[in-house]
Amino acid sequence: MLDPRRIVLSSDRTQSYTRDPSVATSANRQLALVRLKCLLTIPPDRQDKRCLMSDQFSFDLHHRDHHTRARAGRVTTAHGSFDTPAFMPVGTQGTVKALTQQMLEEAGAGIILGNTYHLYLRPGHLIINKLGGLHRFAGWERAILTDSGGFQVFSLTSLRKMTEEGVEFQSHIDGSRHFLSPEKSMEIQAALGSDIVMCFDECTPFPATREEATKSLELTGRWAGKSKEHLLKLQSEPAVAERAGINIVNPTQALFGIVQGSTYLDLRERSLSGLIGIGFDGYAIGGLSVGEEKSAMFEVISNVAPMMPEDRPRYLMGVGTPEDLVNAVAEGIDMFDCVLPTRNARNGQLFTNRGRINIDNARYRDDPRPADEACTCPVCSRYSRAYLRHLYTTGEILSSVLNSLHNISFYLDTMRRIRQSISLGGFDEFRYSFLGEAARGQD
Amino acid sequence: MLDPRRIVLSSDRTQSYTRDPSVATSANRQLALVRLKCLLTIPPDRQDKRCLMSDQFSFDLHHRDHHTRARAGRVTTAHGSFDTPAFMPVGTQGTVKALTQQMLEEAGAGIILGNTYHLYLRPGHLIINKLGGLHRFAGWERAILTDSGGFQVFSLTSLRKMTEEGVEFQSHIDGSRHFLSPEKSMEIQAALGSDIVMCFDECTPFPATREEATKSLELTGRWAGKSKEHLLKLQSEPAVAERAGINIVNPTQALFGIVQGSTYLDLRERSLSGLIGIGFDGYAIGGLSVGEEKSAMFEVISNVAPMMPEDRPRYLMGVGTPEDLVNAVAEGIDMFDCVLPTRNARNGQLFTNRGRINIDNARYRDDPRPADEACTCPVCSRYSRAYLRHLYTTGEILSSVLNSLHNISFYLDTMRRIRQSISLGGFDEFRYSFLGEAARGQD
Repeated sequence: MLDPRRIVLSSDRTQSYTRDPSVATSANRQLALVRLKCLLTIPPDRQDKRCLMSDQFSFDLHHRDHHTRARAGRVTTAHGSFDTPAFMPVGTQGTVKALTQQMLEEAGAGIILGNTYHLYLRPGHLIINKLGGLHRFAGWERAILTDSGGFQVFSLTSLRKMTEEGVEFQSHIDGSRHFLSPEKSMEIQAALGSDIVMCFDECTPFPATREEATKSLELTGRWAGKSKEHLLKLQSEPAVAERAGINIVNPTQALFGIVQGSTYLDLRERSLSGLIGIGFDGYAIGGLSVGEEKSAMFEVISNVAPMMPEDRPRYLMGVGTPEDLVNAVAEGIDMFDCVLPTRNARNGQLFTNRGRINIDNARYRDDPRPADEACTCPVCSRYSRAYLRHLYTTGEILSSVLNSLHNISFYLDTMRRIRQSISLGGFDEFRYSFLGEAARGQD
Repeated sequence: MLDPRRIVLSSDRTQSYTRDPSVATSANRQLALVRLKCLLTIPPDRQDKRCLMSDQFSFDLHHRDHHTRARAGRVTTAHGSFDTPAFMPVGTQGTVKALTQQMLEEAGAGIILGNTYHLYLRPGHLIINKLGGLHRFAGWERAILTDSGGFQVFSLTSLRKMTEEGVEFQSHIDGSRHFLSPEKSMEIQAALGSDIVMCFDECTPFPATREEATKSLELTGRWAGKSKEHLLKLQSEPAVAERAGINIVNPTQALFGIVQGSTYLDLRERSLSGLIGIGFDGYAIGGLSVGEEKSAMFEVISNVAPMMPEDRPRYLMGVGTPEDLVNAVAEGIDMFDCVLPTRNARNGQLFTNRGRINIDNARYRDDPRPADEACTCPVCSRYSRAYLRHLYTTGEILSSVLNSLHNISFYLDTMRRIRQSISLGGFDEFRYSFLGEAARGQD
């Protein structure tokens, strides 16, 4: 049993975590191999950018808010650093829908998410590996987190057959049969070469009885152990990687464990405790935002987050609205991902400092104002609501592009403001002002 | 009857054309009004960019090729200059499909085309005018040419009823009834505020009998006269613009006449002669690329282009492939527009220096090379064929964005190389090398 008080620091001092050096050491031969491959396959003038930039994964905590559990820090990966709290745009197919990589860079994204399930099916993880890994394949030189594929297998596919070993499922594209296991998930993610790998978990459905939730978190716990064991092998034993068809690995990959337990707080604690026993580079809260009430979601977050190891990044999976992000940061969450900003953009919904607007509303037909008058993104700097509405109603591709660019810019800008307010000691003030403006709505 | 020899200059001297100053003079009051509106509605730090930059439309011819009829020059409009020969990306709905305005600027587009028919139906020319004109509506500060709407009325709509006065048609969107005439087309284009306005013409269908083509070009000729007369009124008589619901006009708008006559060379000459009699700021060849053989198309171009006034821009409407552009430049054409680069991009076809490639071809599945190894565009600098194929096969929006960006970059880069070769006296050499490479195809 974890005592939350034990891990709440009383002072504001900086904490740091660096991935177990022995892992890095055992991976050194492999790393040398990676570097050699870089030298051989990348034009000399690009080598410094495309090759690994750091040997280690680390997390440094810089600031802690005095009124809430909010914290500000920095995660360093082989593909650069990103400041936390961070939002990760979702790049399911190796593309954050409708946005170019340059747009993401200019909007300030330091890390994006890739979906193991989708990339495994198309174009296939071994093709991506052959082409140098997901970073090179997608032309994205900053950090990437890959999910485990578990969530998609359980939500997208039909005819699943689950065993202790893993899940047999049929592709949502062509119905072909596949088998995903902790080992297979690690092989796919190792082949993709992401900077942060997620353990293969069962995302407990909602609602779940106490018994179902217990069974599910226990399985997730055993799979977490297998995930760690196999990823370490892939990183340190070239023969294991070779057997999996992998030519090139990123030995600095960090591995995050995923806390399950549905809305049962004691089960959540038990799940976390088990994961801490195994030991991970970071910890995620999974199985939320799957249909439960918002109050139930925040009950879990506010109880689990303070028990998560303070010196590791805390990642809240699949959440949420801008207001959710601000509120979860107040509970001590460091990392987020969500499809809301891009998915809603394609449906014509824009997030603004004054709540959401649906751009197809007839009142915007001749509205010369930008989508968000307080926003400085490339969309709000150049285009009117009238133009954005016109693009949406005529079904133009540029509608998805500009709406997505605005929404992602808004999310990333919100995270910037969150970090700044934590650093300057005004997070609580920022939080209430932000929530108040959002509730006010547009004129 | 025009004698082509009369207008072929023997020397290489520079020729210039500036729009009749009396038009500008009579428009001065209106121009002052526009400026005043700018001052009132545009933030001070943006006024110089958003207000009109020049009072005049002009064309300067700088270089003439010695071996072909190719020529290089510059068109100056109220929204900046662009070098010729120029390609105009097609922005049907006020957006060049799938591209942001910033991408177009960075690719070097100095002028884009807007479709009168589409913008009239959605969002409506008066809404655009109320919002400051098409430039401000679309966030595009460079030059715009608008077509007359004629081509779309004849090709997109059903239930047309044509009279001497104009065409009654039904919208392809909702079936609503509308009437387009030379006067109405000028009112719409004046409301849009484009830099170059096209006369309302009947695009003669192909094939057409000699009698049909004659009747059609005669009507186009009468409509050309009405177009000029009404546009001048709109520019110089505030009451006329006001009656049409137009708040703000661009009195520097230039007007181009359109040569018809199908594939009958003597009818083409007759059409051109009539237009020259009326007098326009530029001349366009219309009614080509509508189903005729390529040899028939070039027979028209090579016979008509040399008869077109040398001191005015010559615009070949709706043409064509990169090879067509190079060959038409050799006949003395200065301006082009075509949907090929963007439409084919959305269908996965990429133009390269070595011909076209269809990116969904299975051979590109693990091809790490850029689409075009000789291309320096943002797509070829960053992404592999394997990634572009992946985006296309997964139906990602980014596929349309990147393919369009490459194709437009390729077209604009081809025009740059054409201009440079004309300026340096090596156009003919460039032309044969370009056509040879294109015919060679990809490895």
